Parts: sequence; structure tokens; C-alpha cells
Amino acid sequence: MANLTNHQWVLANRPTEAVTIDNFAPAETGVSDPSPGQILIKVTHLSFDPSMRGQIAENPGYAAAVPVGGVMRSMAAGEVIVSRHPDFRSGDKVTGMFGWQEYALGDPADEALQIKKIPDGVTVEMALSVLNFTGLTAYFGMLAVGQPKSGDVVAVSGAAGATGSIAGQIAKIKGCRVIGIAGGAQKCRWLTDVARFDEAIDYKNERVSRRLRACAPNGINIFYDNVGGEILEAGLSNLAVGARIVLCGAISGYNSGGLPPAPRNYMALIWKSATMAGFMMNHFSERYATASAQLAAWVRDGELKFAIDMQEGFESVPATLLRLFEGRNLGKQLCRIA
Amino acid sequence: MANLTNHQWVLANRPTEAVTIDNFAPAETGVSDPSPGQILIKVTHLSFDPSMRGQIAENPGYAAAVPVGGVMRSMAAGEVIVSRHPDFRSGDKVTGMFGWQEYALGDPADEALQIKKIPDGVTVEMALSVLNFTGLTAYFGMLAVGQPKSGDVVAVSGAAGATGSIAGQIAKIKGCRVIGIAGGAQKCRWLTDVARFDEAIDYKNERVSRRLRACAPNGINIFYDNVGGEILEAGLSNLAVGARIVLCGAISGYNSGGLPPAPRNYMALIWKSATMAGFMMNHFSERYATASAQLAAWVRDGELKFAIDMQEGFESVPATLLRLFEGRNLGKQLCRIA
Repeated sequence: MANLTNHQWVLANRPTEAVTIDNFAPAETGVSDPSPGQILIKVTHLSFDPSMRGQIAENPGYAAAVPVGGVMRSMAAGEVIVSRHPDFRSGDKVTGMFGWQEYALGDPADEALQIKKIPDGVTVEMALSVLNFTGLTAYFGMLAVGQPKSGDVVAVSGAAGATGSIAGQIAKIKGCRVIGIAGGAQKCRWLTDVARFDEAIDYKNERVSRRLRACAPNGINIFYDNVGGEILEAGLSNLAVGARIVLCGAISGYNSGGLPPAPRNYMALIWKSATMAGFMMNHFSERYATASAQLAAWVRDGELKFAIDMQEGFESVPATLLRLFEGRNLGKQLCRIA
Repeated sequence: MANLTNHQWVLANRPTEAVTIDNFAPAETGVSDPSPGQILIKVTHLSFDPSMRGQIAENPGYAAAVPVGGVMRSMAAGEVIVSRHPDFRSGDKVTGMFGWQEYALGDPADEALQIKKIPDGVTVEMALSVLNFTGLTAYFGMLAVGQPKSGDVVAVSGAAGATGSIAGQIAKIKGCRVIGIAGGAQKCRWLTDVARFDEAIDYKNERVSRRLRACAPNGINIFYDNVGGEILEAGLSNLAVGARIVLCGAISGYNSGGLPPAPRNYMALIWKSATMAGFMMNHFSERYATASAQLAAWVRDGELKFAIDMQEGFESVPATLLRLFEGRNLGKQLCRIA
């Protein structure tokens, strides 16, 4: 493909505290012709997750670190432009771990690439949000780890984010009373008006623990935590006996360079015979197809709403990542690059 | 009982940080004659638990605070000296919440007193340790919360304490490989030589996380934590996938006045799909009799050893409580007062 230039964003250096756009540098390279079995993809949308902060740290919690000088790792969507694989043809829409670059070349059998066709009738936005990692994380975190029962009081932090918003709505579908915690009036309005949460707490303008106590005087049965820090502590202070805390993430601490602030009142787990459980979504990989079909059905039936925060342009990519840690995104953070 | 003087220890003031003997003051009172339905007990042994630190705090985590000026609350053993209750007779040995005093008067039907006869063949030491709260806590914490399976690697902190020593041995009985963490060579020797733990780590002289990694290269399946702080963090750093942390207590922090140090690496629960679960023993109260019978059978069969740290004299009572927080007790801390 001698005529194509592949623009990329590479990791220039590791952030020691907050990630900045200077941690990334533009690069460009050529585009090779696909070998037999390979497909060439023009990347159209990049997907952004808080966990990407861990992947550029010196010591990631789980995934391997992106090497300095390497293309930033990222879930993405694109269109097949050349196929030398029998199951793919030019024009097919796909998702995969294509990274921050304009073109991706690979073998669909390569598990690291996680290439999947986007089915007919599914938008790119849906394929990268509710039907992808963020939706699946919410699905397994809420259903398999949280195990909501009808009548449970469920609180979700980071509730207007891509995962929290889905997790809360799944609890609603299961008959729970759901309280969302988010930053700012706009997000809170979206939670109650669009996503039909029962209550929304604006942590930027309200005292979270006091509002949780008012909204759930008998305590919270499930606290689904994406945030950590003081918001997790507010959850711990308001547990019902036998409560479950689902640990999904701790975005409040991801940008600190060190560890997220630890929950000082973790002993509440003892007084309330409560459980705090973490999970890695890939332990549920055998159930992805079922989960994805269920999520799609809920969306189709209007029971599950999702929001997309779409930024524009390949030059905006590093700045788009920063939006997550500034709490600026409502729903799934994407960037359209073509 | 005009001729009897009841010496007591009352709470003189609340400790703000470490508990000291000056937080308690001696007092004395008369001894009333039992009314119909009551029994009068001469208290012979007092039982000491780390949780007593919480009960003299301004804001206990769970139980009501002992009032300033009130007799210090305590499990104890004694002998009935006057009975006006048809089920009790003079000479019966009993346990109950008699408090730090030489005589206790009450109605066996009063649930707060928790009066129980010590069965024939059971020593006072056994009745106050392995068959009482400490043994039951270990039983339910390990079996119901930890759910050990044969072949699991189990680590116990505070392993030479009254609860930890029983918890670890129960895991051994269930076919686990058991690592104990305790302070000092004497306790560690007791763990391996008497209680038959597979490994003992001396936290005062060894690096706990490094030794845990060496003893459990594939990670710990169950971490039974009595200590909190850095030792809990060492456990979190060495979890196997799907591990359970049983939160029993956090003695390292009880004496700080504030909250125990929070586990800074709690996010390890996510990377390992692990669970941290607290429990209150009274949620298992319907199963006390079964559990106590099982514990007694294990002791009788020689499968379960217990150690008693017996101090002497009513004047030694406050100082005996301090031993727990100084880590001086091996096994159950008792004080004989008559």
C-alpha cells in the first residue's frame, strides 16, 4: 500500500502523576500489503477507558505496560479495506485492539487483536460501548458479582460513565432502587431523566454520605464502585447488613501516580458482614456472546440507554483520553478519526 | 449478702490513643441478695478480647460503648454461690458477660448476660477460649466465610492469638496448607510444633510479603486477617486468582485512636478477582451449639490445640488487657481473679 501513510500516536514517556498530552507524540509509518490470511483496516473510531492509565504506568496492575515508543493500545472500530482472509471482505465493519493509528494490519485469528465483525443493525457507537468491554464489565460486575435481587438498594459511583450508567440500568431492570453518583447537574439530570435512575447525587455540589443516608436510610445492598477514595468511603459508611461492594475501578486515584486512596473505613465490612469483591472481566469470556446478546436486546427494547461522548479528529486523540480523568465525559468516550 | 464486698474495675475515662491502665479505676460496692429467678456468681476468670478496645471508644464500630464510670464489660467464668433459679444450683460452673468484678448477680434468662453452664469435662480455660467467642469466630470465619477447600493455601495473621490459632488449625483439618504470621520466635515455634501449621512467619524479624511469596509462590487462596495494616497489605500482594480475604479484625490499628491503617493496595482485589469479606459472629448464632460441639470433638481427638495465657490477680486486670495490644499473649488471654 505504497500510497498510504499511517499516522500514529506513540507513548513518548510515562506519566508520573496526571497523564498529559505531552506523554504522547505523533509518529508516522508506511502501510504494508496484507499477507495471506491478513486484513487491512482503516480505523475510524477510537475507544477510551480509564484502565488505559494503568497500561502506560511503570507497573500496571494487570495488563502488560505499553512500551515507551510503542503505539498506544486501544480498542477501536474500523472498516476492512483489503482482505486476504476468507471470512472478511472489503467494507466489513470491525472492532478490535487496533491502537491509536489510522491503519491496522493483522490476522483475525490473532487473539491479541480481538477482531470482531460489527453485526448488521449495530452502530459503531453501540459496538464500542454497551456491547463492548464497558457494557460487558457492567453486565458481569452487576449481575455475576453484585447479584442484585428485586428490592435491593443499589448505588453506583461514576454513574454517568460508560460502565456505571449500564450497571445502574441493569440493576433497574432487575427491580432494584438505584442511586447514581456523578459530577455535575448535567450528568445527574441524564441519570434521572434518560437512564431512569431513582436518585442522582452530584458529588461536586452535595455531601455524598449524607445524601446516601437520606436516599437509603436502611443502607445500601450493592455499592458498585468506579471511583474509589472518599466516594467509596461514603459507600462503606452506608452499607446494609450483608451488602456487597463491587469493585470495578478507582478513577479518583488513577492519575495520582501512586495508589488510589485506600478506604479508611474498610472495617465497616466487618460491622455489616459485608463483602468487597473485585473482578476481571476476562474471567467471564465464555459468556461474552450471551451477555452481548442480552445487552443488545435491552437496548432494542428501550430498557437500556447509553450516552456517547464523541470527540473529533486524530489530532484530538491524546486530549480525548484526558477527558476521562477530568470527569468531562458523559457516557462512553470515543473519538472519530476518519 | 451483707458480708461481701464486690471489687470492680470501672472505665475511668476513654483512651484517645493507646489504652493504658489509667483508663480504669478500682471501685467497690456491696452484693445484693438474689431475688427469685436470680443467681449470684463468684467470678473466677476474666476473658480478654481485642474487641474490648472498641467498646471503650467514643464510637464503637458495633457494640454499645461501655459508659464512663461503668463496670468494664467482659466475658468471664465463675461459680454459682447462691441460686434462686430452678435450673442452677450452688457450685455450678458458668460463663457469661459478668464484667470486671468479683461478683455478678442476674437472671439467667437475661440475654445480655449470656449465662451458660460449663458442661462436665470442660475446663474453664476451654469454656472461655476454643468453645467461646474466639473459637466460634474462628469456626464461622474460616468455614462459612473463607470456605476452605482441600489443597487451598491459607495464611492467617495474628496466628498465635486465640482466634487465629484456631482458624489456622481448622483450615489444616480441612486439608489446606497453612501459613501463620505471628510476632516472635516463641509464637512461631508454637505454631509449627504444637498447632502443626506448615509455615510460620515472624513479622518482627522477617519481611512478611517476601516470605509469603516464598511460601506460596502460586498465591494465597484464603487470607484470614486479624491484624490489618501492613500485614493485610502483604496478604493483598500475594493473592491467588479468586482468593478470599476473611476480615476478622485489625488489632494493629485498634490502639491508634483513629481508624486502622487502610490497605493501600486494595485494588489487588480487582486484578485477582478476589473478595474481602467481613462478618459478625452473632449472625451465626443459630449454629453456635453445632459449632461448639464440633470444636469440642476436635479438641478431644487431639486435632485442635489451644494455648492459654493466664495472668493472676484482680489487681492485674487492666494490665492484662494491655497485653493483647502489645502482642504479648500466646493464645487466649485470661486472668484468674479467684
